[in-house]
Amino acid sequence: MSHITLRCTECGAVRDADMSALRCEECDSPLEVAYVDTAPSTPSPQPPRWAGAPIPLPLHDAVVSLGEGNTPCVEMAALGKLLGLRRLYGKLEFLSPTGSFKDRGTAVMMSVAREQGVTEIVEDSSGNAGASVSAYAAKVGIKAHVFAPASAPAAKVGQIRVYGARTHSIEGSREAATSAAVDFHVERGLVYASHNLSPYFVEGTKTFAYEIADQMQGDLPEHVVVPVGNGSLFLGAWRGFSELKDTGRIPRIPRLHCIQASAFMPIVAAYQGIEWTAQPGAMTVAGGISAADPPRLREILRVLRDSSGVALAVEDEEIIRWQRLLAEEEGIYAEPTSAAAFAGLESLVRSGHIGNSESVLVPVTGTGLKDAPPP
Amino acid sequence: MSHITLRCTECGAVRDADMSALRCEECDSPLEVAYVDTAPSTPSPQPPRWAGAPIPLPLHDAVVSLGEGNTPCVEMAALGKLLGLRRLYGKLEFLSPTGSFKDRGTAVMMSVAREQGVTEIVEDSSGNAGASVSAYAAKVGIKAHVFAPASAPAAKVGQIRVYGARTHSIEGSREAATSAAVDFHVERGLVYASHNLSPYFVEGTKTFAYEIADQMQGDLPEHVVVPVGNGSLFLGAWRGFSELKDTGRIPRIPRLHCIQASAFMPIVAAYQGIEWTAQPGAMTVAGGISAADPPRLREILRVLRDSSGVALAVEDEEIIRWQRLLAEEEGIYAEPTSAAAFAGLESLVRSGHIGNSESVLVPVTGTGLKDAPPP
Repeated sequence: MSHITLRCTECGAVRDADMSALRCEECDSPLEVAYVDTAPSTPSPQPPRWAGAPIPLPLHDAVVSLGEGNTPCVEMAALGKLLGLRRLYGKLEFLSPTGSFKDRGTAVMMSVAREQGVTEIVEDSSGNAGASVSAYAAKVGIKAHVFAPASAPAAKVGQIRVYGARTHSIEGSREAATSAAVDFHVERGLVYASHNLSPYFVEGTKTFAYEIADQMQGDLPEHVVVPVGNGSLFLGAWRGFSELKDTGRIPRIPRLHCIQASAFMPIVAAYQGIEWTAQPGAMTVAGGISAADPPRLREILRVLRDSSGVALAVEDEEIIRWQRLLAEEEGIYAEPTSAAAFAGLESLVRSGHIGNSESVLVPVTGTGLKDAPPP
Repeated sequence: MSHITLRCTECGAVRDADMSALRCEECDSPLEVAYVDTAPSTPSPQPPRWAGAPIPLPLHDAVVSLGEGNTPCVEMAALGKLLGLRRLYGKLEFLSPTGSFKDRGTAVMMSVAREQGVTEIVEDSSGNAGASVSAYAAKVGIKAHVFAPASAPAAKVGQIRVYGARTHSIEGSREAATSAAVDFHVERGLVYASHNLSPYFVEGTKTFAYEIADQMQGDLPEHVVVPVGNGSLFLGAWRGFSELKDTGRIPRIPRLHCIQASAFMPIVAAYQGIEWTAQPGAMTVAGGISAADPPRLREILRVLRDSSGVALAVEDEEIIRWQRLLAEEEGIYAEPTSAAAFAGLESLVRSGHIGNSESVLVPVTGTGLKDAPPP
């Protein structure tokens, strides 16, 4: 018997944990992992190289690992000073096997797939998630189909192909690639391993919070500022911090702030209570957060409320300026999506949401090496 | 008073440790760091996140860190089986802040530069070392000039520029870039922070060996197979393992094997006792080891002898084949230079230098993201 079930994030309906369940059968909302036995007789296998507080994971066997997690946390003294903060930390998520934090989620999602005997999966992505799924699929011996928009950057599609996934290039918007992936998985009867919908993917990203608690003992940051597209890292951080708080291992949860690009700001709009729809042909340099219709929007809004977080949008020119500042002041070559969080941080400081006596952590979610250098 | 001096690697002459010394004043050979006080009253500062055996370092202050080191060690079960080995491990050095193991050396070299009040440096590189020096120079606030051949890959030169180093593009061979860098540092009276000559750089790479001893306690590999151009990782590994053996923390030193590309095989030739000179216009896909005249050749030969290692060269087509195998079987996207070591490993197994009952570790030295995808 499994130590987990899947629970609807909205109506709370519970169902057995299997790999093909992505939405609630009652209300069609996304699912989350729920642990049945809070003190299981056989504890979950832990991530490799992890020596901190035990992390509940939806696994029975060891995680399929490419070396993800345990990313460094470095102080950014120059940028902290520039912003007038007590302390600024970057958690270098780009030091992940395929170059982004997505590897945390993929490792757990693909481990579950292996446990459940899955042999072929479908995913849609324009970049980091596709590369991540392709790499772990190679490691675990599962055939992967990755649907990407024809407009996706060649370097990112090249990386997806390198690991051996079959890539399907789809004309039209990012959403067209999602539709094509959904059609294909239904037609072929394959598992749709969507990083945006899979409850196992979000569950994997929570190790991010456990590591922060472990690395910053006694000086937990007051704020964590996250670039948000579909929100898997944002939601994973909340899940991790909540578990740590519930078990008394941290005294409080940092405020979790959500940064979007102004061309794709459905969460910011919902947070502000304004109408928003994507403009046809909308573009941003921050490709990792160009999500017009995040399926977990309501969960994200609850986390903003419960953690006293703020959602705001930033312009591309600010993103590019911060990408340069990160490289030239801190020696960190981040992708524009990561730089967006720093641009947002600047707004949060200017508007007084973050005070000068406070400490802030920002995940540097992806490497700059997959995009063209900043102009 | 400093706890270190610099010692000639050939004649043993000793001189004060400063940043501008690169060769022996007596015999012009390269220098190495020597520790004066084996039990210093104030121990060397340790790398961040390091909890293993104390590592002697040529520093007084904390190391300037971008999060280097503590790279994962993953078992490569599929390739291990393909080669018929007891165990095969990859140490993922590409999960370093700028994408290669060079960050280990640069972190220590630039930390020494900061301690000594250096404000401007010169380096020559066609890729990984240049990016690494540029990034750490940005972090520490030192102005960097990086001399690169005009033929260097655009992505690599782009990364060097991103961090703010002044790049100098030099027509002609890789050696022409070195000559131009040497002329420039003499002309301007600047420090030549050469990753090939600096004794501090090699000293920084020895943390690689300390981590292996820490991560593989009780199952230290019998063999470590290293791609070698100028040999800084190879020599650093030897220094680290030797210190660990001398202090009784490991029972034996793994055999250290040296893999080169057939177009650039000065070490293999010297090991075999044959004549060799680079062909005009010689090229290899393994740009990181295209070194025709490694200044530390004699040191490398001694390590081969003392560790019972073998030196051999591999062809480009084998390198490309192994780059694919790494991606498709293990989910690891390595640069061709790293794949060369695996191609060499295959030869070592076939020729019986490595037996089926033995365990092998190979550093995956750099990320594939900086080169074009394999053809």
